[in-house]
Amino acid sequence: MGGRSSVSYLVLVLALFSLGAEAKVHFHKWTVNYQTWAPDCVPVNIISINGEYPGPTIRAREGDTVVVQLENLMPTENVVIHWHGIRQRGSPWDDGTASMSQCAINAGETYYYKFVADRPGTYFYHGHYGLQRSAGFYGSLIVDAAGKEPFTYHGELSIVLNDWWHKSTYEQAVGLSSNPFVWVGEPQSLLIEGRGKYNCSATSRSCNATNTQCSPYILPVKPGNTYRLRIASVASLSALNFLIQGHKMTVVEADGHYVEPVEVDNLDVYSGESYSVLITANQDPSQNYWAGVNVRGRQPKTPTGVAVLNYLPNPSARLPAAAPPQSPLWNDYAYSRALAKKFVALKGYEELPPLQSHRQLILLNTQNKINGYTKWAINNISLLPPPTPYLAAMKYKIKGAYDTTPPPDVYTPRTYNISIPPPNPNAVEGNGVYVFKSNSVVDVILQNANTLTANNSEIHPWHLHGHDFWILGYGEGVFDPAKDTKNYNTVNPPLRNTVPVFPYGWTALRFKADNPGVWAFHCHLEAHFFMGMGVMFAEGIEQVGRLPNAAMGCGLTKNKIHMHH
Amino acid sequence: MGGRSSVSYLVLVLALFSLGAEAKVHFHKWTVNYQTWAPDCVPVNIISINGEYPGPTIRAREGDTVVVQLENLMPTENVVIHWHGIRQRGSPWDDGTASMSQCAINAGETYYYKFVADRPGTYFYHGHYGLQRSAGFYGSLIVDAAGKEPFTYHGELSIVLNDWWHKSTYEQAVGLSSNPFVWVGEPQSLLIEGRGKYNCSATSRSCNATNTQCSPYILPVKPGNTYRLRIASVASLSALNFLIQGHKMTVVEADGHYVEPVEVDNLDVYSGESYSVLITANQDPSQNYWAGVNVRGRQPKTPTGVAVLNYLPNPSARLPAAAPPQSPLWNDYAYSRALAKKFVALKGYEELPPLQSHRQLILLNTQNKINGYTKWAINNISLLPPPTPYLAAMKYKIKGAYDTTPPPDVYTPRTYNISIPPPNPNAVEGNGVYVFKSNSVVDVILQNANTLTANNSEIHPWHLHGHDFWILGYGEGVFDPAKDTKNYNTVNPPLRNTVPVFPYGWTALRFKADNPGVWAFHCHLEAHFFMGMGVMFAEGIEQVGRLPNAAMGCGLTKNKIHMHH
Repeated sequence: MGGRSSVSYLVLVLALFSLGAEAKVHFHKWTVNYQTWAPDCVPVNIISINGEYPGPTIRAREGDTVVVQLENLMPTENVVIHWHGIRQRGSPWDDGTASMSQCAINAGETYYYKFVADRPGTYFYHGHYGLQRSAGFYGSLIVDAAGKEPFTYHGELSIVLNDWWHKSTYEQAVGLSSNPFVWVGEPQSLLIEGRGKYNCSATSRSCNATNTQCSPYILPVKPGNTYRLRIASVASLSALNFLIQGHKMTVVEADGHYVEPVEVDNLDVYSGESYSVLITANQDPSQNYWAGVNVRGRQPKTPTGVAVLNYLPNPSARLPAAAPPQSPLWNDYAYSRALAKKFVALKGYEELPPLQSHRQLILLNTQNKINGYTKWAINNISLLPPPTPYLAAMKYKIKGAYDTTPPPDVYTPRTYNISIPPPNPNAVEGNGVYVFKSNSVVDVILQNANTLTANNSEIHPWHLHGHDFWILGYGEGVFDPAKDTKNYNTVNPPLRNTVPVFPYGWTALRFKADNPGVWAFHCHLEAHFFMGMGVMFAEGIEQVGRLPNAAMGCGLTKNKIHMHH
Repeated sequence: MGGRSSVSYLVLVLALFSLGAEAKVHFHKWTVNYQTWAPDCVPVNIISINGEYPGPTIRAREGDTVVVQLENLMPTENVVIHWHGIRQRGSPWDDGTASMSQCAINAGETYYYKFVADRPGTYFYHGHYGLQRSAGFYGSLIVDAAGKEPFTYHGELSIVLNDWWHKSTYEQAVGLSSNPFVWVGEPQSLLIEGRGKYNCSATSRSCNATNTQCSPYILPVKPGNTYRLRIASVASLSALNFLIQGHKMTVVEADGHYVEPVEVDNLDVYSGESYSVLITANQDPSQNYWAGVNVRGRQPKTPTGVAVLNYLPNPSARLPAAAPPQSPLWNDYAYSRALAKKFVALKGYEELPPLQSHRQLILLNTQNKINGYTKWAINNISLLPPPTPYLAAMKYKIKGAYDTTPPPDVYTPRTYNISIPPPNPNAVEGNGVYVFKSNSVVDVILQNANTLTANNSEIHPWHLHGHDFWILGYGEGVFDPAKDTKNYNTVNPPLRNTVPVFPYGWTALRFKADNPGVWAFHCHLEAHFFMGMGVMFAEGIEQVGRLPNAAMGCGLTKNKIHMHH
């Protein structure tokens, strides 16, 4: 079984190997399965890769090809993996979004992801199907620069931040899909590189504080040396703030792009974002120091998650004497806004945006009801992806796969009051696509608003697949096209793939629709996307190559796809 | 989305409606999703149909067609439903066995099961993928006789028995697939029609003894009346014994076939079996009575599961004063064997077997190791179904889908000592198929043996899909073809679809390979089948009609199936 496709696959790999002396192929053989794991000392069921949590780190050099042979060993559950930050130029079917770029990989089957790591940076990968990311299904993806970078360091460290619940993702999904709505609540723990610590005496569940799976992650440093610390967040719900006792951090990279160095005491990291910071081990070398992560943007009910900055040769088990560090007040949004605005493109290193756009979308972010169920909607449409992946449906013009009426570019009425709960809370479900002209320039303004609860508006970190975008500006209140566009930063806007929209505010971004494919653009909070908070973008479908058969087999690709060959 | 297939489907349904005045089409619209439920007062995550547990009862009349529109609302998990006891003549693709008769129904998709309820009887349905049946995914399927039955009654009652764990099926699956092996252990509760009661004070888990979901199931009867009580078992692990305080039961039907009436005080019900018993409400009408279910065949560690036989007009809440009834000793196998042998075909009502068979399989049941993992094997092969369903693979001659070398008809060496653990515990994985000549007569002897543990042999209830079989005999020790075939009961053997093989014993059965399709034959204990305890039978593939596209899309049916049209 599968012998034939493996053989033809090997030929392909060998062909790639011969492409050039420099570009390498990194082949990874992964199996996906359930695993009992205790990230915060409470054993739960996770989705693991090769039995590890977090999943194995992928490391490549700019220009290399990454091939992941993914065998799904879960008995009944399908999977995909999204390679977050990889643009998938020429391989849109390997973006790893179920119902969008491909059919999910069936239980018992093997799929080969293949993509070019065409740009250096700090990336990661994660499940992009249901709530699988929240089940621990993620890991790091780091692409080294082929050339010289604009900063130096002695060594490198890498962590992924996460929030963690004891309730299974299946039960979480039931709650989110129920009427009355059952909210999962604040996380039990915060994890640094998959490790946290729950207060065992506070639970009636099985909990073992001596389990090595929940011992703090160790960041070993030599006194006097400078390190590049890569930080990413796959948090399901929480905006996070990261800091290290007694150590400044200098931010030098964000989402794979260089930024003008910014020195900070602590760093907001929104779900879907990644950063590189430089830290120097310049404190008392007889001590170790806590690295810590705290919740921001929501009233914190979760203890600080910690790791240990271990000054060698101190034993790693020598825990810091002081209490874990505290972050700014959870609702000090002014702090967060100011920090976000500090990140600008490093001069001379990053592409600048076109000065004009061809199209402008203004996307209102609202919490809504549909038939009594709580949803999130964009311009009053809550995204319900269809069983047939968009990419196959559009490429092969499969009829009836999705609503071909495009969703509205701008919300109506334009007088919508963002300061109060929606007067008419009802939204509709939809699965239409914003289709852009190839290589056109698109502006998107994310407009935040009040949720269903009075005096409440939340931070949403929006992530765009297949592209980076320039952040042209952040603003408070209602975006005014006539006025606010004049203040766009087109001089040194940072290129990112994820950006927050702050409570009651707006965020403006620009990108080039220059990557043939169908791409999700969505709130990176797992529950929000699950509840419909996203839109679909598409461009250049006619330039997309033949989709692999292995990406088919669901929805209308069961019986339609082969008519075209 | 899906509009087109719904429309063409409606036409089909209407066509069926017009077939005849008598045959009806029963249309059921089901959604499958997770649900929080507390069958034994401890809330857990189950797989439910239309939010109910157990699933809705299907009721049809002999000759009617049943159509189930099944929409899978689980976010990431696929499903199938097996219609246990329905032979699926002419519709082998709707037997509901993932990787065998069809591709599992993807999350978000809708499948239409359609089959003829061509024979009256007590049936049921359940998930047949991974451990989904153990997640509560089952319900009753009752087919009324078109004509007169050989017994009469005033009313009808129906229950499905089950055993129940608090550990999720995902965690159970991890344990079964781990080395070292993690056994799920004895059930926390026994359920009658989805209801049991866990001792809340014995658990640190959330447990609410006043939850109505775990209040005993009520069987209302009028004093003096006689009832047909339908009893089936979907137990994952346990052999069960059912009884009612102070009431005799007269067994009249087994697996949809009439048997000579047998009066019993208590009834062994193996997983996969169904019975109809007649009970008369002839006791003190001022009382209610416990119906109870206990574990047999394994040292019981689970309290009696109870329901209430409610003599009207007593309030159903009037619980019986006496303790729940006790069953025979768990290891009194002589009792079980004697009881099993009492069931014979009702004279004049049931087809008798051909006197000779064309082929004889002798299938040795062993517990084994493969690469250190614990498995069950048949003739030293542990079944690992391939990603491509057998039915599609065989019908469309898809190369490389499964091992076309047939597994051995008889175990070797024939001197294998069944009384000790396997001297060489290593088995192999396989997915070959026993292919029978159309309409040939096949004998199968199930030969039990010692497990990996000394002095241990277990009861295995074997279930055959697509057919009923005659039980020709049971025996102890090693089956002797020369001698034991002479003692076969060919006079009035019962027709069944499920039969136990007792510890260290054998069971012989005969069936006609007269139903074109590919059919599983396996131990009905969920964990055992999951660990490879089954074989595949096939016959008359060339007579199988065109498979529905909706049953495709997995494995090699992604890219091969359409070449043949």
